[in-house]
Amino acid sequence: MRIRTERIQKDLDAINAFNGTPGKGVTRFTFSKEHQGALSYVVEELRRIGVKCTFALGGNLRGRVDGSDPSGPAVMMGSHLDTVGEGGRFDGTAGVAAALEAARIIKEEALFHRLPIDLVVFAEEEGGRFGWGLLGSSAWTGRITADQLAKIRDREGAGYGEAMEKAGVKIQDSTLLHRDNLKAMLELHIEQGRILESRNAAVGIVEAIAGIKQVIVTIEGSADHAGTTPMDLRRDAMQGAARIIAAVETVARQEGEGGVATVGQVFCEPGQANVIPGLVRFSVDVRHSDESRLRAMAAGVAHVAENVSKARNLQCRIEVKAEAEPVEMTPGICGLIETIARKKGVEPVRMASGAGHDTGIIAKICDAGMIFVPSRGGRSHCAEEFTEVEDIALGAEILLDTVLALAR
Amino acid sequence: MRIRTERIQKDLDAINAFNGTPGKGVTRFTFSKEHQGALSYVVEELRRIGVKCTFALGGNLRGRVDGSDPSGPAVMMGSHLDTVGEGGRFDGTAGVAAALEAARIIKEEALFHRLPIDLVVFAEEEGGRFGWGLLGSSAWTGRITADQLAKIRDREGAGYGEAMEKAGVKIQDSTLLHRDNLKAMLELHIEQGRILESRNAAVGIVEAIAGIKQVIVTIEGSADHAGTTPMDLRRDAMQGAARIIAAVETVARQEGEGGVATVGQVFCEPGQANVIPGLVRFSVDVRHSDESRLRAMAAGVAHVAENVSKARNLQCRIEVKAEAEPVEMTPGICGLIETIARKKGVEPVRMASGAGHDTGIIAKICDAGMIFVPSRGGRSHCAEEFTEVEDIALGAEILLDTVLALAR
Repeated sequence: MRIRTERIQKDLDAINAFNGTPGKGVTRFTFSKEHQGALSYVVEELRRIGVKCTFALGGNLRGRVDGSDPSGPAVMMGSHLDTVGEGGRFDGTAGVAAALEAARIIKEEALFHRLPIDLVVFAEEEGGRFGWGLLGSSAWTGRITADQLAKIRDREGAGYGEAMEKAGVKIQDSTLLHRDNLKAMLELHIEQGRILESRNAAVGIVEAIAGIKQVIVTIEGSADHAGTTPMDLRRDAMQGAARIIAAVETVARQEGEGGVATVGQVFCEPGQANVIPGLVRFSVDVRHSDESRLRAMAAGVAHVAENVSKARNLQCRIEVKAEAEPVEMTPGICGLIETIARKKGVEPVRMASGAGHDTGIIAKICDAGMIFVPSRGGRSHCAEEFTEVEDIALGAEILLDTVLALAR
Repeated sequence: MRIRTERIQKDLDAINAFNGTPGKGVTRFTFSKEHQGALSYVVEELRRIGVKCTFALGGNLRGRVDGSDPSGPAVMMGSHLDTVGEGGRFDGTAGVAAALEAARIIKEEALFHRLPIDLVVFAEEEGGRFGWGLLGSSAWTGRITADQLAKIRDREGAGYGEAMEKAGVKIQDSTLLHRDNLKAMLELHIEQGRILESRNAAVGIVEAIAGIKQVIVTIEGSADHAGTTPMDLRRDAMQGAARIIAAVETVARQEGEGGVATVGQVFCEPGQANVIPGLVRFSVDVRHSDESRLRAMAAGVAHVAENVSKARNLQCRIEVKAEAEPVEMTPGICGLIETIARKKGVEPVRMASGAGHDTGIIAKICDAGMIFVPSRGGRSHCAEEFTEVEDIALGAEILLDTVLALAR
C-alpha cells in the first residue's frame, strides 16, 4: 500500500469540521461557508504538493496534475463535498479524500503518467440546496445550459450564479467538458447500501448506474362517513392505494436483483380517523440498470394501479415526477479495476448503483468507472453513515493504480 | 299530515342563517355567537307557543310542554345545533326543526298527553369546539362529572364553563337526568349514510348505535436508501402497513352488514420519495353494533398487524385512541315507530347507526328510539349534506305520534 490511511483519516476529519449542523450529522450545502471552507482545505492541500486549482463551469473545482503530455485529454478522479441536510461524513467526502491522497502519492513519488490527472470536486451533487441533483456535472457537460442554471433558485430564492458569486467562486475556466479533452472519469464512492456488507466484500465495481422513474399516483374515491357507510357502498381511496402499494413490491421482486421499487410518500385526504379517504396520493420510485426492464417495471405498476382502480370504481392518475435513463460504466474500465483489485488480493463484487452519481453524467462523454466501498448497515444520508477508513484507503489504492493505468 | 313542511323549511333556513362560514358549509360551534343565535331562534319560537325554556346541566337547552301530569317523567325529543367545522345544514338541525314543529302541533292542536314532553337541544354533540363529542348529554347524565367538564378546553384554551358563561348561558337547572324523571328519549336525525337511499326508503328505525374502537397502529422498520437497498435487504414499514391496511377491509367484509372498518389517516417517515419508510402510522376505526363482534374485529386487525410485522421483521405497536360500547335502542319503541310509520303508509328500514348520537348516551338511563331520514348520496359533515324537507316532515310526523303515544 502506497496510500497512507492516516492521511485519509485526517482529510475526512478536516473536511467534516466544516459542518452547519454539528452533533446532528453533516450539513454542507453547495456554496455555503462550510462548503467553501471544505473546498479551501482541498485547495490548500493540493497547493502544498504543487497542484493549482481552478473553478470550472458550474462551480466545479479542478486541480490538475500534469503528466508528460500536458495537451492530452485528462483522466479525472473525484467526487463531491456537498451533503444533504444532516447527512453523513462519507457520502462524496470519501471519494474526494481518496482522490486527494492518490494525487499526493503521484506527486510525492513522481509516478509516471503521460496524460493530465485531474482531481475534481463537483458542485451540488445532492441537490440539497437547489433541489436538483448532479447540477455541477450537468452544467459542466452542457446537459443544462447557463440560462437554465441561472433560473435555478434555492429555498430562499437565491439563484445559482448569485450564490456562487456570494461564496467568492469565480469561474476561471468556462469551457464545456468534451470527449476531446477528457479521456476517463473515475469516482470512488460509498455504496450507501448493504450489498458489499452482506457479501463481506471490501470493494464493489459499478457496472451500471440504475435508471430511475419516479411517479406520483393519485387515487380518488369518495370521502364518506366511516361509521355510516357500509363496506359495499364505499369508494375508499385508501383501500385501493394499499393494494397498489403492495403490488409495487411484487413488481420489483419479480425482477430479482436488478430492480427496486419504493413507496416513500403517502398522503391522504381528508385525513381523519372517522372519514373514509376520498383521495390518496403516493410516490412510486422504480429503479433498474436495464432501460427496458425499467420501462417494464413502471408499466407494471401503472397496470396494477389502473386495474385496481377500475375494479373499485376509483379514479387513478399517474404523473411522472423525475426520470433518468440507466448509464453503463465502461466495460474496459470495470475489467481494469477488477484486475488491479485482484492483484492486491481483493475479490471485488460487480454491482449496479441504485443511487445517481456525477460519474453517470460524465459517462455520456467519456469512459467511466466507479469504485464502491462498504457502508455499515447500508446507512446513508444520516449521522449514522459510516465506512471504515481502511476500506476507503484500499479503494484509494485501487483508484490510484486505475488512474495511473489510464493516464499512461 | 299535521306537520307543516313549510314551517320546517323556515326553521332550517332561520337556524342555518347562523353560520360562521357562509358559502363554505355551516360552522356553528357550541357557545359561539352563531350557536347562541340559533338557540335564541328556538327559544323565541317556543315562547310564541307558550313554552318556556331553561338551560340544564352541561349547557343543554330544554323547553317543556306540560301534560295533564306535570310531575310525571318526561318524554324528550330533540337533537343538537352545533356542527363540525364547515359542516352541513341538516346534521342535528333536522332533528331540532322536527321536534320544534312537533311541539307546535301539540300546542296548537292542544293534543292530549299526560306526561311532560320536552324539546331538548344538546350542547357539543359533535366535539367540533372542545374535541370531545356527546359532551352535553354526557354531562347531563353524569357520565362525566362537573370537575371533568371544567377541565375540557377548546383550541384557544377556553374552558367549557368559561365559554358557556361568556356566551351568556346560565344553568337554571343543575339536576342530573335520571330514570325517575325521564321516561323516554326520541331523536330524529339524518342517516349520514346511503342505506336508506340505496333501498329507496324514506324512514329508518335505529335498532342499535354501533360500538366503536379506534386504534393507532405504528409500524417500524428501517429507513434506507430507495436506490441502494435491494428488495431482500429491506425492512420497509410501508410495505408492511399496506398489507395490514388491505386486511382491515377484509376483516370488515367478513362481518357482512354489521361491521365497518376504515383506515382514514396514514402518516409516514421520513416521507421522501427516495427513502424507504422507516415508520408508518395509521388509524383503524372499527364499528359494530354487537359488542362481541366488535371485539372480534379489533382482535382480527391486531392479529394481522402482528403476523405481517413478524413475517417482515418489523416492529408493531397498537394504541387505543377511542372506544365506545354499542348501545341498543328499546325494542318496544322501535316497534312503536314501525307501527306508526306503517299506518302512514311508509315501510321503514331497521338499521344500525354507524355514527354516535346523544340518544345513545341518554339510552343508558331510559327507553330510547331514533328515526333516521335519508341523506342524499350519504354525504354528511360537508356543504353537500342534503335531506329533502318532505322526508324531514314525514319523519317529524312519525316522531310526533311516537312521542304522543309514549306521553299518553
